[in-house]
Amino acid sequence: MSIKAFLNKQRVHWMSASGPESDVVITSRVRLARNLTGIPFPHLMDESAALTVMRSVERALAGGQGTIVEGLQLVPMSHLNPVERRMLVERHLISPEFAESGTELRGVAVDEQGALAIMVNEEDHLRIQCILSGLQLRQAYAWAEQADNALEQTLDYAFDEKRGYLTACPTNVGTGMRASVMLHLPATALTNQASPMFQSISQLGLTVRGMYGEGSEAAGRLYQISNQVTLGLSEEEIIANLGTVVAQIVEQERLLRSRLMQEARLQLEDKVLRAFGVLTHARMVSSAEALSLLSDVRLGIDLGIVPPAEAPTLNELMVAIGPAHLQQAAGRELGALERDLKRAEVIRSRLTGTR
Amino acid sequence: MSIKAFLNKQRVHWMSASGPESDVVITSRVRLARNLTGIPFPHLMDESAALTVMRSVERALAGGQGTIVEGLQLVPMSHLNPVERRMLVERHLISPEFAESGTELRGVAVDEQGALAIMVNEEDHLRIQCILSGLQLRQAYAWAEQADNALEQTLDYAFDEKRGYLTACPTNVGTGMRASVMLHLPATALTNQASPMFQSISQLGLTVRGMYGEGSEAAGRLYQISNQVTLGLSEEEIIANLGTVVAQIVEQERLLRSRLMQEARLQLEDKVLRAFGVLTHARMVSSAEALSLLSDVRLGIDLGIVPPAEAPTLNELMVAIGPAHLQQAAGRELGALERDLKRAEVIRSRLTGTR
Repeated sequence: MSIKAFLNKQRVHWMSASGPESDVVITSRVRLARNLTGIPFPHLMDESAALTVMRSVERALAGGQGTIVEGLQLVPMSHLNPVERRMLVERHLISPEFAESGTELRGVAVDEQGALAIMVNEEDHLRIQCILSGLQLRQAYAWAEQADNALEQTLDYAFDEKRGYLTACPTNVGTGMRASVMLHLPATALTNQASPMFQSISQLGLTVRGMYGEGSEAAGRLYQISNQVTLGLSEEEIIANLGTVVAQIVEQERLLRSRLMQEARLQLEDKVLRAFGVLTHARMVSSAEALSLLSDVRLGIDLGIVPPAEAPTLNELMVAIGPAHLQQAAGRELGALERDLKRAEVIRSRLTGTR
Repeated sequence: MSIKAFLNKQRVHWMSASGPESDVVITSRVRLARNLTGIPFPHLMDESAALTVMRSVERALAGGQGTIVEGLQLVPMSHLNPVERRMLVERHLISPEFAESGTELRGVAVDEQGALAIMVNEEDHLRIQCILSGLQLRQAYAWAEQADNALEQTLDYAFDEKRGYLTACPTNVGTGMRASVMLHLPATALTNQASPMFQSISQLGLTVRGMYGEGSEAAGRLYQISNQVTLGLSEEEIIANLGTVVAQIVEQERLLRSRLMQEARLQLEDKVLRAFGVLTHARMVSSAEALSLLSDVRLGIDLGIVPPAEAPTLNELMVAIGPAHLQQAAGRELGALERDLKRAEVIRSRLTGTR
C-alpha cells in the first residue's frame, strides 16, 4: 500500500480501541533508537552521509522478506506535502520535529495497519516505533524488537558492550528504548488527583506530561507516561516497571469513576450530556475545547451515560479533528477560523452518524 | 372558569406572541391604582375595613354584567395555596409581595384569557391591570379603563379634582397609572448598548430595570421600561410617550440584530446553536442559565438560525420554568436541585417536541 493510500484510511491500529484496559489506556508505544556504526549522528552528518543511511535502511527493508518488516517502503519526506507529514504526526506515527521539513534526507516507513513506523535520520539514524491499542506494552515491544532484529541482519548498529546502544542524546544510551502509554484520566483530573499522583510517579523514574499542552489539567485529560531511564535497566524491566505503575493508575481511575457515579451522578450526567449537546450543535469548535468535550463524552460512553458510539469513533475523531486531517478532509488549506468550522462539522457528522 | 382551572391552562393572553413587534416586545402592561373613599389605605386599615373593601369589589364585579368585568370572580388569597399564588406571579398577573400571604383579606380576580387582573388590598384597595402580547399599550389601557369604568359604576373612588386619584404611595397620585413594556433586547445587550441606552431613557422620565435581577446584563436579556411620573400628564400622554421611546428601542434592537448577522454571523449561529444543544441535552439547569440560553434560542428563531418553534413556545417556556410552575407540573414541592432537574426536563421536552 502506498503512503497516500495509507493516509486515506481513517483508522490506524491503535484507534481500534480493541486492546486491554482501553477504557483508560488509549495507546501503548515502544520506540527503539538505533544508529549505524561509522556514520556521524544526524545532527553532525552531511548530506551524503544522510543519503547513505537512507539507502542502507532501504536495503535492509528490502532484505526483510519473511520478517515483520516485509513490504515496508521507506518514503523520503520530500514525497509528502506538509499536510501529509502532519497527518502522520496526528496519528502518533512520527514526531512533530520530524514532520517539519520535506527533505529527501529523511524518510519514514509505516506498515499497513499503522502499528509499526520507522523514522530515518530523526534525532538518531533509526527510530523504530510500535504503537498499539490499550495496555499492551509487551506486545508493542515484541513487534519493535522483531523489526529491530530484522533490520540488524543487514545493518551494523553502533553498540558498546558496556553502555549498550549509542544514541545522539545521552539520555537514550543503553537500551535506546522509550516505552510510553497514553491514558485518558477524566475522573483523576476532575477530582484533582492528577498532580499528586504524577508527583509520586516522577519519583519512580517515570515522566508524565499532558498529551496536548501543559498545565494542571491537560487538554482532553490525556496524559502520557514514559520511562526516563534507559541505562542500567533491561528492556523487560523498563516495561514491567511501567506496566505495574500504569495498572495502578488504571485501577485508581476506575475507582474514582465509580465513586463519581455514586456521589455526583447527576452532575456527571449533566456534564456529559451537555458536552454531547454542544458537540452535536456547535458551529465552530477550537481544538482544545473539542478535546475537552470529547473527553466528557468518552467518559459518558465508558459509564453508560450516553449510548456507546461504535468503539473506535472517539479515537478516530480525536485524530480527525487535527489541523492536518481537517485540511485533508476539506481538500485545501484552511485558516484558523475555517478549521474551527470544519472541526465542528466533522464532529457533528460523526457523532450524529450522518456522514 | 374557576381559578384552579385557569391555573391549569398553559397559556395566558400575552404568551400568544401574537401582538405587534413581538419579535422584541414581549408584553405591554397598564395598571391603574384606585382606592375607595372613606376607607384607610391598606397599610393603615383594620381587618373589618379590608373585608369591607373585598365585599364592595365583589358587589361591583357582580354588577358588571354587559361590561368587560362580567364573569370575573374575586378569589380570596386564602383559597390559593402558596404554589398557586406564585404561579400568578410567574404569569405576571399579580405582584410578588401580594403573593406572599394567603389571607382572606386580599383577593384577586382574573379574566378567562389572563389579560385582565384585579388585585384587591395590595398597596392600594384596587390594582386593575391589563397585560397583552407585543406592543399594544393603547389597547391595554383601553381594557383597563373599561374595567375601571365598570367598577366605578358601583364603587366610590377617592379622587381629588386637583391631584387626581389618591393613592397609598405619593408616586402614584394623579392618573394612578403605570404603563410598562417587557422587552427582549439580546442584540442591544450583546453589543453593550444597554447601559448607555438606559441612561438616556431615564432622563425622559422613564424607568428601566432587568426583569430578573439587576446588573448590566439582565438575566434573559429581558428589560422592563415604565413611566415614573403619574402626576401632571394625562394617561394618553404617558402612553404616547412610552410608546414612542419603545418604538425607537425596537428599531435600534432590530438594526443591531441585522448588523450582528452581517458582521458576526458565524459567531451568532454558534452561540444560538450551542444554546439549543445545551437546552436539549442538559440534565439540570438553573433559572438564570435557562433564561440566558432561552434568550439565545429566541434570538436564533427571530433571525431564522434555528427553525421556528410554534410561536408561543418560548413565552410559555419562560413561565413554565418558574419554581411554582415546575412544582405544579411535578405535583409536589421541589428542593432547589430537584427544580433544576425538573426545569431541564421541561425545557428538553418542550424544545424537542416530546411532551
